[in-house]
Amino acid sequence: MPREPRRDAVIDSAASLFAENGFAATSVREVAEKAQITKAGLYYHIREKEDLLQRICEHSIAAVLEGAYRVLENEAEPGARLAGLIRSHIEYFVGHPSNLRVLTREMGALSPKPRARVAKLEHEYLDLIRGVIRDGQAAGLFRALDPTVAAFTMLTVMNNLFDWYDPRGRISPTTLVQQIETILFQGVTADAEAPNDGGAI
Amino acid sequence: MPREPRRDAVIDSAASLFAENGFAATSVREVAEKAQITKAGLYYHIREKEDLLQRICEHSIAAVLEGAYRVLENEAEPGARLAGLIRSHIEYFVGHPSNLRVLTREMGALSPKPRARVAKLEHEYLDLIRGVIRDGQAAGLFRALDPTVAAFTMLTVMNNLFDWYDPRGRISPTTLVQQIETILFQGVTADAEAPNDGGAI
Repeated sequence: MPREPRRDAVIDSAASLFAENGFAATSVREVAEKAQITKAGLYYHIREKEDLLQRICEHSIAAVLEGAYRVLENEAEPGARLAGLIRSHIEYFVGHPSNLRVLTREMGALSPKPRARVAKLEHEYLDLIRGVIRDGQAAGLFRALDPTVAAFTMLTVMNNLFDWYDPRGRISPTTLVQQIETILFQGVTADAEAPNDGGAI
Repeated sequence: MPREPRRDAVIDSAASLFAENGFAATSVREVAEKAQITKAGLYYHIREKEDLLQRICEHSIAAVLEGAYRVLENEAEPGARLAGLIRSHIEYFVGHPSNLRVLTREMGALSPKPRARVAKLEHEYLDLIRGVIRDGQAAGLFRALDPTVAAFTMLTVMNNLFDWYDPRGRISPTTLVQQIETILFQGVTADAEAPNDGGAI
C-alpha cells in the first residue's frame, strides 16, 4: 500500500481520536502523536483544533454526497437508485468508519459558519434521498411512507454503524453492506404482491 | 394532570438537560433550577451528579425491557412479537424522549459498576430481540438475516429518534410509531411471495 500524504494522516488520526474519545476530550498533542509528527508540524497544517473537525465533517458529507450523485448518474430506476444509495453510504462507512461517527456526533461542536456549511450539504443529501423515495412512490414501487421518516430512518442506520459494528468481528464488511441494504431496501420498498402494508402487521 | 412526585421531577429535569446539552456540560445547579428546588434540596435525593445519570439509564433500559417482556407474554407468534417489540420501544421513546437519548449517548460516562449493570440489561434486551428474530426465521417467516445485524439495526433506529424527530412537528407520534414499525417490520420479515431476498435488489 502506498504511503498516504502527511495531510491525510493528520485528518485520519484526528478522526480516529475524535471518534473514540470525543472532540472535546482530544488534544492537539494527541493528534500529533498519533500522526507521528510534532505539535509544531501539525500547526503547519491547521490554525486550531476545530480546523480538524471542520475538515473531517466537510470531507465526510461531501464524499457521501458525491457517491450519491454517482449513483443517480448510473441508475435510472428508483429501486436501483435506492439500493445504490444505501450501498454507497455503507461502503463509505466501511472505508472511513471514524468519519461518519465524528460527523454524526461532533458536528454540534463546530462554529456557526462551518456548521452551517456542513448542515447545508446534509440537507442536500436528505433531499436527494427523499426525492428518490418520492419517485419510487410515484411509480408505485415503494411503500406509502412519509419520505422524511423513511429518509431519516435510513440515515440513522447508516450513520451510526460505528456504535455496534466491529470490522474485526464475525460479520465481514461485505455481509454488513448486503444485510443493511436488504433491511432498509425491503423496509422502504413494497413487493407488488403486498401493496396493503400495515394491515398485515 | 396530577403533579408528579418531586423525585420524578428531578429525574425528568436531569434527563431533559443531559439530552439537550450533554451530561458533562450540565451542572447540578441547572438540574435543581429546572426541577424548581434548591441545590441543597437536590442533594437530599442524590450524592453526586452521576447518581442522576445512573437512575436515568437504569430506569430507561428497565422500562424498555419490561415492555418487551409484556409483549412476549401477550403474543405467541414471532411476527406479532416483533411488531409488538418495535411498537413498545417507540412508544417508550414518545413518552420519554430524553431518556433514550441519555441512555444511548451518555452511558459511557457512568462508573464501571453501574455501567456494567446497565450493559447487562441492554444485553438481555438484545438477546430477547435476537431470540424473536431466530424464532421467526425458524418458522420461515423472517428473512435470512444475521440476527445480530437485524437486532442492532432495529435498536439504532429506535434509540436515536431524538436526533431528528420533533414531537411538535408535522408528524404525529402515532404516525411515527406506525411508520417506523412498517419499515423495520417489513425490513426484517419476508413476504411469502418473495423468499429470495437480495437477489431481487
